[in-house]
Amino acid sequence: MTAMTAPEIFALMHKVFPTVKAMNFEIEQLDDDTITLSRHTTDQDLRPGHTISGPAMMTMVDTAAYFLILSRIGPEALAVTTNLNINFLRKPVPGKLTARGELLKLGKRLVIVEVSLYTEASDKRVAHATVTYSIPPHTSSQP
Amino acid sequence: MTAMTAPEIFALMHKVFPTVKAMNFEIEQLDDDTITLSRHTTDQDLRPGHTISGPAMMTMVDTAAYFLILSRIGPEALAVTTNLNINFLRKPVPGKLTARGELLKLGKRLVIVEVSLYTEASDKRVAHATVTYSIPPHTSSQP
Amino acid sequence: MTAMTAPEIFALMHKVFPTVKAMNFEIEQLDDDTITLSRHTTDQDLRPGHTISGPAMMTMVDTAAYFLILSRIGPEALAVTTNLNINFLRKPVPGKLTARGELLKLGKRLVIVEVSLYTEASDKRVAHATVTYSIPPHTSSQP
Amino acid sequence: MTAMTAPEIFALMHKVFPTVKAMNFEIEQLDDDTITLSRHTTDQDLRPGHTISGPAMMTMVDTAAYFLILSRIGPEALAVTTNLNINFLRKPVPGKLTARGELLKLGKRLVIVEVSLYTEASDKRVAHATVTYSIPPHTSSQP
Repeated sequence: MTAMTAPEIFALMHKVFPTVKAMNFEIEQLDDDTITLSRHTTDQDLRPGHTISGPAMMTMVDTAAYFLILSRIGPEALAVTTNLNINFLRKPVPGKLTARGELLKLGKRLVIVEVSLYTEASDKRVAHATVTYSIPPHTSSQP
Repeated sequence: MTAMTAPEIFALMHKVFPTVKAMNFEIEQLDDDTITLSRHTTDQDLRPGHTISGPAMMTMVDTAAYFLILSRIGPEALAVTTNLNINFLRKPVPGKLTARGELLKLGKRLVIVEVSLYTEASDKRVAHATVTYSIPPHTSSQP
Repeated sequence: MTAMTAPEIFALMHKVFPTVKAMNFEIEQLDDDTITLSRHTTDQDLRPGHTISGPAMMTMVDTAAYFLILSRIGPEALAVTTNLNINFLRKPVPGKLTARGELLKLGKRLVIVEVSLYTEASDKRVAHATVTYSIPPHTSSQP
Repeated sequence: MTAMTAPEIFALMHKVFPTVKAMNFEIEQLDDDTITLSRHTTDQDLRPGHTISGPAMMTMVDTAAYFLILSRIGPEALAVTTNLNINFLRKPVPGKLTARGELLKLGKRLVIVEVSLYTEASDKRVAHATVTYSIPPHTSSQP
């Protein structure tokens, strides 16, 4: 069922997304339907009030969803985000930020992923999102 | 009806959000219910395929909404984003990115803003979003 | 550009959606990119506190989007709703409920419509929504 | 932690929401953070193609969220829906429709609930939603 492994995803990212490389993501866990992605926030991610910026959290959500999708459909399928809906639930404390993603639907044309964000301060989610990717026709995971 | 002018918003941003300052936003227009915010994308905002990253667009949406809200409720009211929903409609071409925001509701506790994103390549929106901010109790624009 | 006119849409609805027929929708205006749909609320649509139920408003949103899409892609294309996001802005007063829909994107596979709801009590929106429809492959408006 | 039990919720519904009463909901399970609500679809809920209408599913989502919130904040707190975002994942087969709701956040002013819908045809979700309720000030579960 797997089209790309975690090391293959990172190799691809480092090659084509230098900005992503700089963000020091770590894939802690990856299987057919779920992913756990983490990184440590930096000064650039912070906001006054000792908190993490919304864009930093949205980047985390989108990246976790994208990596999970890549692992299933492979690098040739040019998945693009068509919708992202995020609820910010609690004030996130800077430090390690962890995204847990789960495939809600893996269709031929639409893929929907649910992502929850956690910090080390609590086992309660700081944010919850759903992300929809569209997979263009005439792309596939087979070379 | 105005609590902060565009220069006052920028002065506040430069003081408390150095990252925002570096993004070179320009408030092209601001009145009671609408805002036009723009900036030129940089290499950091791009993705392979000559396009603008989702996070760069979400940052633009959130910032336009935040500035419009600040202009009405002032700096003392600590508005926080509680929901952001964005539809990515067309491939955005790097260059000048423009956000047009409109207040859908300015309640005492919830503020909802609609934001459309445009590039110079077309007069059709590249993305459309709604953003909800919550205004905590016991904060107000009156000192 | 038009695949179905308002009378053709109603004829189709009456044939295949008896429940929709019973709701007494009126298409007040329909052109390439916009629709104005209205109906009068009944006791079944109400909630205590002299207001209109959320489901009644969501039905209005979905129907307006569906009719606008039908008018462009025709009855053979089996468009299905894949996402609906709605913000309830103000308490709606029972009576005439009007939906104004606008096409944000008419792609080959995804169609996104923005819908605002109004009542007669005010010119301010009572709700604002975006609806995404997916158009399955191998369906088209051409027989 | 509980402000209302399942029988108390039903008694309230039967008193103030006759339409809801007619829908024959059953609360299968209810605890501090989760609810399982079900009902059998009727002809009024169906669409051509042997499927359940979007509005019927949205009603189910909103009701599950509302009952879960009622169970925690009680009947005096006039919670109103402010946002509902739903992804329709798979074609739902008529019959028993089950909603599983989970509290994502129970704040003093905002409550966010995640709801998944299932039918008997599969253990995969047919729809996934998040619902936000606002709790007006000056209402509380204490008489």
